Formats: sequence, C-alpha cells, structure tokens
Amino acid sequence: MTFAEKLAEAVRRNESLVCVGLDPDPDLMAVRDVVAFNRAIIEATADLVCAYKPNYAFYEALGTPGIVALEKTRALIPAHLPVILDAKRGDIGNTSLFSARAAFDTWSFDALTVNPYLGRDALDPFLGYRDRGVLVLCHTSNPGSRDFQDLQVTGADGVSRPLYEVVALAAREWNAYGNVGLVVGATYPAQLARLRALCPEMTFLVPGVGAQGGELEAVVRHGLNVQGAGLILNSSRQVLYASRSSHDFAEAARAAALRLRDAINALRPTPSSR
Amino acid sequence: MTFAEKLAEAVRRNESLVCVGLDPDPDLMAVRDVVAFNRAIIEATADLVCAYKPNYAFYEALGTPGIVALEKTRALIPAHLPVILDAKRGDIGNTSLFSARAAFDTWSFDALTVNPYLGRDALDPFLGYRDRGVLVLCHTSNPGSRDFQDLQVTGADGVSRPLYEVVALAAREWNAYGNVGLVVGATYPAQLARLRALCPEMTFLVPGVGAQGGELEAVVRHGLNVQGAGLILNSSRQVLYASRSSHDFAEAARAAALRLRDAINALRPTPSSR
Repeated sequence: MTFAEKLAEAVRRNESLVCVGLDPDPDLMAVRDVVAFNRAIIEATADLVCAYKPNYAFYEALGTPGIVALEKTRALIPAHLPVILDAKRGDIGNTSLFSARAAFDTWSFDALTVNPYLGRDALDPFLGYRDRGVLVLCHTSNPGSRDFQDLQVTGADGVSRPLYEVVALAAREWNAYGNVGLVVGATYPAQLARLRALCPEMTFLVPGVGAQGGELEAVVRHGLNVQGAGLILNSSRQVLYASRSSHDFAEAARAAALRLRDAINALRPTPSSR
Repeated sequence: MTFAEKLAEAVRRNESLVCVGLDPDPDLMAVRDVVAFNRAIIEATADLVCAYKPNYAFYEALGTPGIVALEKTRALIPAHLPVILDAKRGDIGNTSLFSARAAFDTWSFDALTVNPYLGRDALDPFLGYRDRGVLVLCHTSNPGSRDFQDLQVTGADGVSRPLYEVVALAAREWNAYGNVGLVVGATYPAQLARLRALCPEMTFLVPGVGAQGGELEAVVRHGLNVQGAGLILNSSRQVLYASRSSHDFAEAARAAALRLRDAINALRPTPSSR
C-alpha cells in the first residue's frame, strides 16, 4: 500500500484530516517520559486522526535516548495510520540516499519532509521510494518564509513568480509516481490558495493549524482539492499541551483533537458528496 | 574559545586547510565497525587537518547504533580540533531551538551546517550560540544547485541577482557575532569567486574537493581570503576510501590527506606572508 492509499484509507476510516504532531517538549509535557507521554497521546487520539507526525528535532535534542524514544513511538502507532517523519532532509545525492534509508528502511516511516534548496538530484533518492510520501517544503508557516520563498524569481521560461511557486511547479514535475506532496503553512492562506490552483492533485501537509494561529476556515476552503480532501492539517502544541496536568492531559488532547476534527469537517463537503 | 578561534588555531598548528569528512559508508569501509574505522582515520590524520566533519545521514542510516557511533566519534577527536556536524538543519523557530540544543549542547559540536530556505527566524536559535559556527548552505556542489540557487531573483532593493547571492548577502547580515560561514561547493569556482568578493571576511566550507571533481587550483585561488585562509576544504571519500584494504586504509588515508594538504598549501601564500 502506498502512502497516498494509506492516507486516504485513514481519512475515510477516521473521517478526519487532522494530523497530530508528536513533538515532545520537556518543558511542556505533563509526564516526564517521552514514550509514556506519546503512548497516552496516541491511545487518546488514534481514532480521530489521519496521520501522526513526529518532528525529529525534539527527539535528537535528547541524544541517543531520544532516538530510542522515536523508534519506540513509531512502533506504538497502529499499522493502519501513516506516520510522517518531519525531518526536513536534503543533501547531495549520495548523502540523501543514506537519509532516505534512515527514514524509510531503518525506521519504516511512511513519509518524510524534505527541503528543496539543493534541487532535484538531492531529492531523487527519496523520490525513488515510490510507496513512501515525499513532502517538499514550499511555503512555510514562519515569518522568515518571506526572506527567500516570497522573492520574485525569473524562471527558465522567462516568467516571473515567487520562489515558492517555482518550487511547487518543480515538485509537480517530480511527482511521476504520485508520491510527492507540499508543505504549506496555515498562516498564509492566500499562498495556499495559489498553490492549490497550481497543484490541484497534490497532498498538502499544513502545519500551523491552531497554536501558530492559522485561520482554519480560510485554510480548509482554499486548501481542499476537488474531492474534498488532499489536506493533512497538523496540530502539535494545541493538542499535546491542551492540559499540562498528568491527570487529564490525554483526555484534554482527545477533546482538542476532536474539536479540531469536527471544526474541519464542518467546512468540508458532506460525507455523501465526498 | 569560539569556533573561529579554534579553527584558526588548528589551521596554524597543522598548517592545513583540509577537513576530513567522516562519512562511513558500509559498502566502502575497509573495516565493518564505524567507530573502529573512524578511530583509525582520526589517528592517521589528526596532525594534518584543520577540522573534521561527520555527516549525520551516514550515522542515522544505521539507526540508534549509528547515533551512538556518532557520539563516540565526536569524543575521539582531539579537543583542539573543531568538529563540524554536517546535518543541514533548519525548521521554524521553536523547532530549530531543539536542533540547536542537539548539535551544540547534547553533542557538543563546534559548528553545524544549516539550510536557509526557511529564512532568518529559522536560523536564529543557531545564531544565538555565539561561540559555535553556523555554516549556511549557499551554492552547493551538486548539479541540482542550478534548479533554484542559480535562479535570478529580484531583491527588495530592485537589483537582480542569483538566489545564492541573495542568501550570501543575508548570511553576511546575520553575522553580527562573527559565527556565520557559507557552504560553497568546489565544483563551481566562478560562483566561489563571486561569493568571496561579496563576503571577503567569512569562512567558506567547501565540500567536493577531490571525489566530486572540484578543481583544486581554481578553488584555492578564488576562495582564499586576504589572510590566505578563510577556507575549510573538505574531502571525504578521497581520504576515507583511498584504500579499501583493512591492512593499509589508515595509512592510505594519511597519504591522501597529506597530498591534499600539501597541494593546497602550495597554492597559498608562503607561511611567512600569511
């Protein structure tokens, strides 16, 4: 089963476009142990999400024990739910092959986020895993996305476009196996709309829903594809840290994920028309 | 001691601009054990280099044991030699903070390579470590560097420049603490010359010397700063895999590093004038 198929199945089964970002922050977690924390979050939300997305940085910050916790977390997630490793990889070809092996073979993730700055050949080793998702950073959710991504670029065709659109058009070309998606921050709905127009078929991973202040309605309206899906809407802090108490953090996470799922579904076409 | 000071001291002490990339490839290593291999390489070359540069991808490909091997490798390198973690990190601000902790606190690396695509705020957490080096990808050594890095961009000042020059100018601005450098591939000496003109003071990490076919003479002539330094010339495969035999790989690595060091020094101003 490919990443796209697994994702579609999870979206259908759980009637959800919500992805929970498993980003354990020692200063915010209600319990100290990363695996125990993630286990509680996963058990509380596994019927409400279409995917999980651990961000590598939160695990590597803890050194080897963190990487062990990442491996254990991966193993805790029910097999029918896709897991996206958010690691923003990308290096010269020979080296990317090793990052691809890490994410897809060693750790068995279903998808990986990658950075396009090094160009096509840096991403080829990832793209060659046809059954895995390769989610290309396009327009990110942070203020610094303006520094380079929004700059006007003159392409090989002589047309002037912002860099993020050039990246999107390239990613569309790289999508020969249907395994390429884009990362588009929720905080820039106008850019999201533009990208949906350029790439009607591609899956968009949208971080920044919730804690980063993305406007949910604009994101869903501008981001859905014609099938009423094509979006993975990620929330991390809003779900993980809905309560900071060890007594009810899992329950609070469930409530937050449920609220988000239902708010999103209220903006989608009714299930019968999907 | 800052990264810049430690580097300058190592350059002087070993009379070398050579960095050895510790990129253990199981298909090429003369011995199976990563730490034993790296130990032999380090012992054979520690008096010939100005730095070592392990690339994270080669370690993560092995899973947790690989990360343990990275930590052990870090600990094997003599304290007076700077160690650059080549991991090309960069994420939204909150997340980059955790990658910065991993590289600089948890693992005590002296410098880290970062990817500029997400903009300034994504790099701020790294830049805040004033005594560590932050080496920003600018023009990479691979063919795909043409895909985006060479595109003509119209900046805020209305001037048209290739994207990699815009990145270099931004990195120059980010260099308030003198801890920022650029990554510039050896395979594009014309771009290297242009970058040296734009950033006369900055340190350039130059991968692709040797195995990737960079022309050494052009690189050294165009890349040196006015003090006859400012370059970290990295070679990985040419040194590590000079011999594939367990009997003489360390000796062969030493010979290759020595040849490279001397070839570079022959192109530098004489020591008395440096």
